[in-house]
Amino acid sequence: MGAKSHSVFGALKILLATCQYPLCVVAMKGKAVIIMGSERDLEFCREIAKTLKTLTVDYEFRVASAHKTPQKVLEVLSEFEAQKVIYITVAGRSNALSAFVDANTSKPVIACPPYSEKFAGLDVYSSLRVPSGIGSLVTIEAEGAAIAAAKILALEYKPLEKAVKDYQTEKKKDIEKANETIKNMK
Amino acid sequence: MGAKSHSVFGALKILLATCQYPLCVVAMKGKAVIIMGSERDLEFCREIAKTLKTLTVDYEFRVASAHKTPQKVLEVLSEFEAQKVIYITVAGRSNALSAFVDANTSKPVIACPPYSEKFAGLDVYSSLRVPSGIGSLVTIEAEGAAIAAAKILALEYKPLEKAVKDYQTEKKKDIEKANETIKNMK
Amino acid sequence: MGAKSHSVFGALKILLATCQYPLCVVAMKGKAVIIMGSERDLEFCREIAKTLKTLTVDYEFRVASAHKTPQKVLEVLSEFEAQKVIYITVAGRSNALSAFVDANTSKPVIACPPYSEKFAGLDVYSSLRVPSGIGSLVTIEAEGAAIAAAKILALEYKPLEKAVKDYQTEKKKDIEKANETIKNMK
Amino acid sequence: MGAKSHSVFGALKILLATCQYPLCVVAMKGKAVIIMGSERDLEFCREIAKTLKTLTVDYEFRVASAHKTPQKVLEVLSEFEAQKVIYITVAGRSNALSAFVDANTSKPVIACPPYSEKFAGLDVYSSLRVPSGIGSLVTIEAEGAAIAAAKILALEYKPLEKAVKDYQTEKKKDIEKANETIKNMK
Amino acid sequence: MGAKSHSVFGALKILLATCQYPLCVVAMKGKAVIIMGSERDLEFCREIAKTLKTLTVDYEFRVASAHKTPQKVLEVLSEFEAQKVIYITVAGRSNALSAFVDANTSKPVIACPPYSEKFAGLDVYSSLRVPSGIGSLVTIEAEGAAIAAAKILALEYKPLEKAVKDYQTEKKKDIEKANETIKNMK
Amino acid sequence: MGAKSHSVFGALKILLATCQYPLCVVAMKGKAVIIMGSERDLEFCREIAKTLKTLTVDYEFRVASAHKTPQKVLEVLSEFEAQKVIYITVAGRSNALSAFVDANTSKPVIACPPYSEKFAGLDVYSSLRVPSGIGSLVTIEAEGAAIAAAKILALEYKPLEKAVKDYQTEKKKDIEKANETIKNMK
Amino acid sequence: MGAKSHSVFGALKILLATCQYPLCVVAMKGKAVIIMGSERDLEFCREIAKTLKTLTVDYEFRVASAHKTPQKVLEVLSEFEAQKVIYITVAGRSNALSAFVDANTSKPVIACPPYSEKFAGLDVYSSLRVPSGIGSLVTIEAEGAAIAAAKILALEYKPLEKAVKDYQTEKKKDIEKANETIKNMK
Amino acid sequence: MGAKSHSVFGALKILLATCQYPLCVVAMKGKAVIIMGSERDLEFCREIAKTLKTLTVDYEFRVASAHKTPQKVLEVLSEFEAQKVIYITVAGRSNALSAFVDANTSKPVIACPPYSEKFAGLDVYSSLRVPSGIGSLVTIEAEGAAIAAAKILALEYKPLEKAVKDYQTEKKKDIEKANETIKNMK
Repeated sequence: MGAKSHSVFGALKILLATCQYPLCVVAMKGKAVIIMGSERDLEFCREIAKTLKTLTVDYEFRVASAHKTPQKVLEVLSEFEAQKVIYITVAGRSNALSAFVDANTSKPVIACPPYSEKFAGLDVYSSLRVPSGIGSLVTIEAEGAAIAAAKILALEYKPLEKAVKDYQTEKKKDIEKANETIKNMK
Repeated sequence: MGAKSHSVFGALKILLATCQYPLCVVAMKGKAVIIMGSERDLEFCREIAKTLKTLTVDYEFRVASAHKTPQKVLEVLSEFEAQKVIYITVAGRSNALSAFVDANTSKPVIACPPYSEKFAGLDVYSSLRVPSGIGSLVTIEAEGAAIAAAKILALEYKPLEKAVKDYQTEKKKDIEKANETIKNMK
Repeated sequence: MGAKSHSVFGALKILLATCQYPLCVVAMKGKAVIIMGSERDLEFCREIAKTLKTLTVDYEFRVASAHKTPQKVLEVLSEFEAQKVIYITVAGRSNALSAFVDANTSKPVIACPPYSEKFAGLDVYSSLRVPSGIGSLVTIEAEGAAIAAAKILALEYKPLEKAVKDYQTEKKKDIEKANETIKNMK
Repeated sequence: MGAKSHSVFGALKILLATCQYPLCVVAMKGKAVIIMGSERDLEFCREIAKTLKTLTVDYEFRVASAHKTPQKVLEVLSEFEAQKVIYITVAGRSNALSAFVDANTSKPVIACPPYSEKFAGLDVYSSLRVPSGIGSLVTIEAEGAAIAAAKILALEYKPLEKAVKDYQTEKKKDIEKANETIKNMK
Repeated sequence: MGAKSHSVFGALKILLATCQYPLCVVAMKGKAVIIMGSERDLEFCREIAKTLKTLTVDYEFRVASAHKTPQKVLEVLSEFEAQKVIYITVAGRSNALSAFVDANTSKPVIACPPYSEKFAGLDVYSSLRVPSGIGSLVTIEAEGAAIAAAKILALEYKPLEKAVKDYQTEKKKDIEKANETIKNMK
Repeated sequence: MGAKSHSVFGALKILLATCQYPLCVVAMKGKAVIIMGSERDLEFCREIAKTLKTLTVDYEFRVASAHKTPQKVLEVLSEFEAQKVIYITVAGRSNALSAFVDANTSKPVIACPPYSEKFAGLDVYSSLRVPSGIGSLVTIEAEGAAIAAAKILALEYKPLEKAVKDYQTEKKKDIEKANETIKNMK
Repeated sequence: MGAKSHSVFGALKILLATCQYPLCVVAMKGKAVIIMGSERDLEFCREIAKTLKTLTVDYEFRVASAHKTPQKVLEVLSEFEAQKVIYITVAGRSNALSAFVDANTSKPVIACPPYSEKFAGLDVYSSLRVPSGIGSLVTIEAEGAAIAAAKILALEYKPLEKAVKDYQTEKKKDIEKANETIKNMK
Repeated sequence: MGAKSHSVFGALKILLATCQYPLCVVAMKGKAVIIMGSERDLEFCREIAKTLKTLTVDYEFRVASAHKTPQKVLEVLSEFEAQKVIYITVAGRSNALSAFVDANTSKPVIACPPYSEKFAGLDVYSSLRVPSGIGSLVTIEAEGAAIAAAKILALEYKPLEKAVKDYQTEKKKDIEKANETIKNMK
């Protein structure tokens, strides 16, 4: 936020402080908080982070287990309670973390469980089959989790909207370029 | 927005108009746009709408098929381009709609495919196995789609945050009440 | 314990009080604590209770959700911390409860998830695919959960051992009787 | 078509031009248009092309994504609208391309999704579970897609019928030869 | 063919008789031959026939089993050897019929196996996992088989092309009409 | 049969020739005929043959495809019509061979489909889901097919019964030996 | 055996008694012994028996559980040790009975597990995935188990061979009759 | 038990001998008896043993097959009849051992089947789908089987309770430590 002119920002702050209407806000950029259930998921979380960086989304990592350190998970949620954050929860095998986080926060939760070859990836059902009252959302793609986070934050923060659109345009161009090359092959 | 004081709002508008920073916004409530791939999904979409109502989230219905009326889908996306919306896409069998919508908008997309008994629900993989560059998120629960939409819109719009928290509190109380009754059973 | 002679029991108590060895104990009968994640599981829990009764195992019901009321689950565990109990955890869909309970107690945990027709019962993987450090055990049969609880408590409490053996003998006799009837059919 | 005598062809052309009956045609050889959803599918598409070559079926490659560049897919369909073509659509993961193409053309569509080890190949359901009104047909074998294309074009174009029959005869001879060798083994 | 002018047709016949090029043909309408492996599949075959009728595709029914009456299947193939036909093969459980027919004809083969609730529809793999050298194509939708057959025959027979396009247009209109109705619902 | 005294055998032959009762027979050893659908299955068939050898069961190999060379399969069945044989049918992917052979012979048929990693081995359902009137039996173990064949032939041919019993005893001893070694491990 | 001439039979008996060669036998009809793991499987076993009757195969029923009354299973095997029998083992859920019987007899074993809707019939894998040294064979069709038993006994007992062939012929005629009726339908 | 004071122990023994109440016991440590169905499972059993050692649980190995050496399994059960033991049963493929052991003992049984890549691990259903009257419990984790065994024995033997709690605490600390390291990563 270094580029922001102090005077306008100051004016806004004063204005916001005096008004009692919750609808008057300074759009915050927000960030993604990636909670992994185990240190073993770090590599996969870094994949998510890679696309977040490309999309200029800020993020933080946390490690906490819904099964083994539930209090720690709740502490993390408290830590970000007053901030504009999206949780990306990463837990292999039986994924309790995502719905646990979701039930205990009003923030959006993106479950991004890593694929396991064991049992041909059936673990994904533990992310999908959430109990009543739960709103965690699932993507099995690290890139997808990052795009989704960017899109959610972009709803109110225009620079991110542009980043998302640029990213999408790039993907489309890649396909069109491939078409130009390949259509002449025999 | 009827409750908003005109003078403060006016001041904000002037301020926003004069400043060149995209970060200064008036938080909009936003809404959910439920796109169903077929009329047959209407009943399921109404389930989503029911929880959206409970959570005071505004919504609209549209019917358009990614396979059969792709231009219509793109038209719907254009229609809401300048608004703060979240798409909830509902398509049974092979779900092309969700990723199709996601690829063509910078708005968040929640895929909420209805369960089919045929093939024991394997259709869900068509929602999960999205190609690269796609950020659509999956929930198989109508209630979950509504909660997630509310949470996303609640990031900047406080009244929705309260609605989400109240909803969650209600669910917790239900469980605690059940415990009081059942723990004395034999 | 009404049948116990007071003098011998008293002598034992004195002896145990004076000795510092934790290995000197009066065998307690113990009991099963059935925790269900939702009121909806009550009927299934009653099936477990029915066989527990037949096997003369004492039990109590509790309702608490690992996702939605984790603090309540921890409270239940505290409540029985000083007692000889086995937890039977009953949670449908994605079962977080069983491993959550297991991680937070040194008592044995029997996960007994109810079958769901949706997705042809794949929910069972959420009970099986526990993270490292978890010792919860799975049975998908209500009767099986009760037998297992009885067997565990029977290790030190002989009347339960007899109940288990009688139960098993009864089952064998049923088969033998069926054989006598059916082997003459044409 | 180099071997065709110009005079007869010319006579036919005149005749066809003068008659108003759509049933009078010069049988065209036709061709297969292989549309792949991503450059990553090229190797698999080359496998299809290999058998097409053996069967003397002409073909062209295109790259276009139903999700990401739907307009481009529609353009490809326009390009071949007036020609006798069969589409072979190749898209991994969730296959939207095949049904998308099918819904937007009156030409036959052969979906030939590449196998993925992830989730033990369940992606094939996204090709099979098409919505109402869709006639795309599935084969999971590259060779099979080529044979099917040849058979369809062979319905009116006799040289292709011969190519198909020769191919089939060759396969049968291979089995018979193998039998001669192996039946004497011990 | 009643509408065909005799003189043009006669001219064509003479022309075709004198020319030695197999490429000169009178486009035939062709038809679909529906072979079912068992009488039990009749109801499902009638569903296919219903859409064939709508699309003005001619068809015939045959019953023959690849396992139990293979000679009869071969006879059916001989019967239609000189005609322009597409086979639609309908066989439940383990589908041998489709690949059997495909291996023994140069005509296109559409496998349309009926769904079975037993084993959650896994029978479809017996239609998909064809051996090398086989080009049978799979659709699990009765309507889809009919559309595909129409599209194949429409390649050279324009009235069918129109029927297919009309059918597709109708489907699109249905969706658009549904949208008009539903978008005003709350 | 070299060890057989000629005079007794001769007497039997005369006796059998004069009697008209089909129940009077000289027990034949019989053999296994291993039919593979493709040369690619040879290695797997050799595994079956290895155990057949150990069990002293005679065998022959044939290659024939139910899909591609059905007449050849029928020829093989004719070839062994008058002999005491068991068919072991080996066909990967969609297994039509086993039920095809079964429907066209009164001899027992053992389907022994090789495992395929593709689709996590779901091909086995094509061997199991036979149509009505079919009696082919399935084992997925090469060793198991050989044991089963030996057991069937052993019903009337005592030397094979002994071979089977010796084989079983050997397996039991292996387990007991392993127990002796392992029970002392720490 | 009432039709057998006593003098020839007597001569054979004397001859067989004097010769030391186990290969000289009077072909016995033999029978099927249907062992069910539980009384609950009786109805399914009766289905098997129905086809056995049609095929004139003799049979007996027994009830014994490999898990719960293993000694009883071994007793049944002893009872028929000296007779010509085939075991048809019927056990739902996890089928231990079939491989248990197979490991403890030299007679052929046909596992015929009843289908269970729970878990979409995955129980069949417990019949298929036998350990090393086991030769039990699987069919999931009651009719198929009966046909297989008849075929095995028919190897040496000609009247059964005729019964099997008649049964097969009847099935083929049914299909041909159906073809005659249905081929004229529109 | 070397640290136990002889006089107190002696006093207890006398007291216990004179009293007729089964509830007066000296808490025994007990042990785990690991029965594997085949030598091939030894490596996996050693994994279980490794965690048992860490948790200070005593154990013994046995090899016996429910299918092939059922009498041996029963012998093992007799051997430990009078001792305080928990059975951990390890059998790959179709697991008959666990339910077989469970039906024939009043001791607790933990089924710990090793994972098989074949059929994507579906073998686990043979451990889960036990018949009525069976109380064997399933874990697919070697570590989990050991923890569960320790927890069961810890119910009456306090030093094991401490070992379990220490183990759990260690796991929690690992996660917290990982969090400290990773939360500062970018």
